[in-house]
Amino acid sequence: MQVTIIYVGNIKDKYLSEAVSEYEKRLKAYCQLNQIELKEEKLPENPSNQEIQNALKKEGSKIIQNFSNKAYKIALCVEGTIISSEEFAKKIETIKDSFANITFVIGGPYGLSDEVKNACDYKLSISKMTFTHRMARVLLLEQIYRAMNISNGGKYHK
Amino acid sequence: MQVTIIYVGNIKDKYLSEAVSEYEKRLKAYCQLNQIELKEEKLPENPSNQEIQNALKKEGSKIIQNFSNKAYKIALCVEGTIISSEEFAKKIETIKDSFANITFVIGGPYGLSDEVKNACDYKLSISKMTFTHRMARVLLLEQIYRAMNISNGGKYHK
Repeated sequence: MQVTIIYVGNIKDKYLSEAVSEYEKRLKAYCQLNQIELKEEKLPENPSNQEIQNALKKEGSKIIQNFSNKAYKIALCVEGTIISSEEFAKKIETIKDSFANITFVIGGPYGLSDEVKNACDYKLSISKMTFTHRMARVLLLEQIYRAMNISNGGKYHK
Repeated sequence: MQVTIIYVGNIKDKYLSEAVSEYEKRLKAYCQLNQIELKEEKLPENPSNQEIQNALKKEGSKIIQNFSNKAYKIALCVEGTIISSEEFAKKIETIKDSFANITFVIGGPYGLSDEVKNACDYKLSISKMTFTHRMARVLLLEQIYRAMNISNGGKYHK
């Protein structure tokens, strides 16, 4: 199966990019991973709400351009559903039966526009606690790896 | 204030130990951080439930030996309360009024014994999803840093 991850922004910290590489490598055993990094819109230091909304809208259009009709699309956001790793594994299994691709979307520091959220099939929250969007990328990769390992009867999750 | 983190096991992955160092450095601005790494009990590849319980008990005694009567103790475990970063910040603020030390405990791959959980004042869950206990260490440090930043009116969490 194909897994696409669309991110807004890039990873600056060395330890996070090393973590991303590590999970990229591990996921090769289970899926074809396709990562799309989109440029974050530049904002002034203390942006107004209007400036933030405009930036989210621009980032949103670029995200939606990368959506495929054939993909099941999952937006990561705070208001998303909180599920366990086992439930996440089952969810991926079910999607796999009907779709050749699962696309995950992680926004920039201000999240995702409503247009992106509405264009997605599911909203997922990794934790009630907030992590940086860069860290969310590592956490998502780890959860996808864990899910595929659970579904394949691996030992990683035990 | 003094923050103690008691871990069972060590960090093998370079990217995780770099992440730990990064947050150690950042936390110096806000608190005196004291990290205690306890040795994980050795277990066979497919341990029986009894072997796991024995290991947890031994690890638990070592953890409790490191507890101070003057500390507010928080156990990280799946059955713990799920709270937001803002609620976590408020919780730390409240504890600060009555205790000079907060101690967090993260178990090994099989978690914590009931003795440890019962000896703690609060049970916290970072996410409904499961992460490795090594990653939990980074996530906890990030959340403590985020909480202290929130309480000090910093910009990190925005």
